[in-house]
Amino acid sequence: MIREPVPRTVRVFEEGVLRTLRKHGMLDPGDAVLVAVSGGADSTALLLCLHRLARRLGITLVAAHLHHGLRGDEADMDEAFVRELCLRLGVRFVAGRADVRRLASERKRNLEDAARLARYEFLRETAASLGCRKIAVGHTLNDQAESVLLRFLRGSGEEGLSGIHPVLDNLIIRPLLERPRGQVQRYLTSLSQTWREDSTNSQLRLRRNRLRHELIPYLAKHFNPRVLETMARTAAHAREVAGYLGSVSRRTYQALRHGTEPDIVQLPARPLAGLHPAIGRRVLRLAIRDVRGSLKGITARHADELIRLCGSGTSGRSVDLPGMVTARLQFGELVLQRKTPGAPGLYRYELPVPGRCPVPEAGVSFSASLVSCANVPDAPDRSR
Amino acid sequence: MIREPVPRTVRVFEEGVLRTLRKHGMLDPGDAVLVAVSGGADSTALLLCLHRLARRLGITLVAAHLHHGLRGDEADMDEAFVRELCLRLGVRFVAGRADVRRLASERKRNLEDAARLARYEFLRETAASLGCRKIAVGHTLNDQAESVLLRFLRGSGEEGLSGIHPVLDNLIIRPLLERPRGQVQRYLTSLSQTWREDSTNSQLRLRRNRLRHELIPYLAKHFNPRVLETMARTAAHAREVAGYLGSVSRRTYQALRHGTEPDIVQLPARPLAGLHPAIGRRVLRLAIRDVRGSLKGITARHADELIRLCGSGTSGRSVDLPGMVTARLQFGELVLQRKTPGAPGLYRYELPVPGRCPVPEAGVSFSASLVSCANVPDAPDRSR
Repeated sequence: MIREPVPRTVRVFEEGVLRTLRKHGMLDPGDAVLVAVSGGADSTALLLCLHRLARRLGITLVAAHLHHGLRGDEADMDEAFVRELCLRLGVRFVAGRADVRRLASERKRNLEDAARLARYEFLRETAASLGCRKIAVGHTLNDQAESVLLRFLRGSGEEGLSGIHPVLDNLIIRPLLERPRGQVQRYLTSLSQTWREDSTNSQLRLRRNRLRHELIPYLAKHFNPRVLETMARTAAHAREVAGYLGSVSRRTYQALRHGTEPDIVQLPARPLAGLHPAIGRRVLRLAIRDVRGSLKGITARHADELIRLCGSGTSGRSVDLPGMVTARLQFGELVLQRKTPGAPGLYRYELPVPGRCPVPEAGVSFSASLVSCANVPDAPDRSR
Repeated sequence: MIREPVPRTVRVFEEGVLRTLRKHGMLDPGDAVLVAVSGGADSTALLLCLHRLARRLGITLVAAHLHHGLRGDEADMDEAFVRELCLRLGVRFVAGRADVRRLASERKRNLEDAARLARYEFLRETAASLGCRKIAVGHTLNDQAESVLLRFLRGSGEEGLSGIHPVLDNLIIRPLLERPRGQVQRYLTSLSQTWREDSTNSQLRLRRNRLRHELIPYLAKHFNPRVLETMARTAAHAREVAGYLGSVSRRTYQALRHGTEPDIVQLPARPLAGLHPAIGRRVLRLAIRDVRGSLKGITARHADELIRLCGSGTSGRSVDLPGMVTARLQFGELVLQRKTPGAPGLYRYELPVPGRCPVPEAGVSFSASLVSCANVPDAPDRSR
């Protein structure tokens, strides 16, 4: 049997993937790995590469493909493409189907978010049911750079700049995260492997595409030819700092927190106000999350307001946070508490006609006047 | 006497400056303030604004202008412009002169760096000699955003992303740091005040100008209309995180460091290797700076190498750092030490002719061959 020599492009790519796998301890011998394959270049290369390395790594593969029910014939052909590829490689293939449009309207998400949620749910369930200990997904160095840049332009701190994690929950792994997209495509071409292009990319993700096709090439040309690698380094650095600040804050929060009642968190105000703001703000976010269940709509300004409240020392003062949470200073303690949902009869005001009636609880004021029937204006149409 | 009403643009600008002054505690009543005035829009607005607020703030002003000896007539006219402005306002004026070209060649800096060094030296000396407790300089929100973006694109961590500090050494203050450049120019126009444009800007600072005139407008248009404010927030956040990490690292370093010999730092290896990398790396940088005097040429990779050395536990192993510093693991201690300067006789090798002679201490290899006189090539000209 004559073995063809492995092209240099292929060797370089696979050695790079092996380095990433080792550096982040992504795979152990004996692992069954579920590989997420859309049929695009990145995930096709991921499947092919892990398949070629499988014996050496001592792993077994299953490929999974989710049909999002969005792009008609084209999506059917993607599924057929992945099915045939798996057949040829001798890799077990699992196909799933989701109704992303329904999911999006049910959960009030945009299509892209809903598709991602559906995909990860499908992958986690499939992995669990098949006993796969790892789920491999095809994010590349370009995805990492794009994500860090977008977050930076939005003003994210360490958490956001941490970007795409190489390993998540010791379950999801991203073996291509240190490979540039150009290398991925050269790898496939060298192995005479085709892939599917997603024609809806440009509609679904306008901003991401502008970043990909305009901003990053522009930055590479005029500011930093190694912008992809620089962004990846920034992400690694941010992950490290976020990890450290997170662990200090969690320890501090646990040490300061009083009581164990659900929906109430009590923290001593003076020690809280004395913390370094980098930690104090994070401690408060942990407290708010415990009371509210999430941090949606909570900004740095809210944490700052609570720190000022603690510093003021005025017992009885309180601050309202979004999501029906009140923070009150009581005898040297900051008490965070969920408000009881506004039952009818919680407050009542008389509205004189004509006259005005302010409702401080709601932050609004009603005014009433008498008009003649003929002068009633058409109600503005708010139905849309 | 009839007082003209203050235009809205002027009021908004000055209220913004007052907010910045208060927020950062920049000025105290009784302060004598040296204002750095180049004659450009930013510093002209700074002088005018502080002059208009001087009585209210209880401060007195001196204006200082440094002639860089670089742009001939144009620079002479800048100086004359500032002198006349001060005469009109009744502000004391101090002019200085520097030979920036000579300074650049003496200190091996580019012209821009040398000009900045000269300017701050002049300002500090002038402030000291006149008893000014503060030096006000005219950086704007745009300068802040540009600096944060440039550092981000180069891959800086918190220290770099901290950008331009509102207050430095409790001496240098930047009252315009939260005002966008557009507001500065509208302020001057509203007060019918002209300014000088620096025609060499475009030559001196190509990259900075591309950032200013291309990248930032592009980002504001397509990614974040409030990109200036977002970058300023990022800088404030990075300053906070850098401050916290710095203080933890300094405390840790002081607690771990053994001995007080100059030019030697000893740290126990096992506790060092056990630190969170976000702190461990910073502790090592403090140690390296103590031994070397600076961190020039020291990267994250060097600190990582030392952490690996500490983790290895192999007594006697050592790592060489740039700048003649050796790190050696000795009986559980990491010993950082400056090598004795390479006195003659420190090492000696014979170079056979023809032949090769590697010099491992210097990391180079010399090779010698015999050539005929006629074939001696012209020496490459390294003089430029």
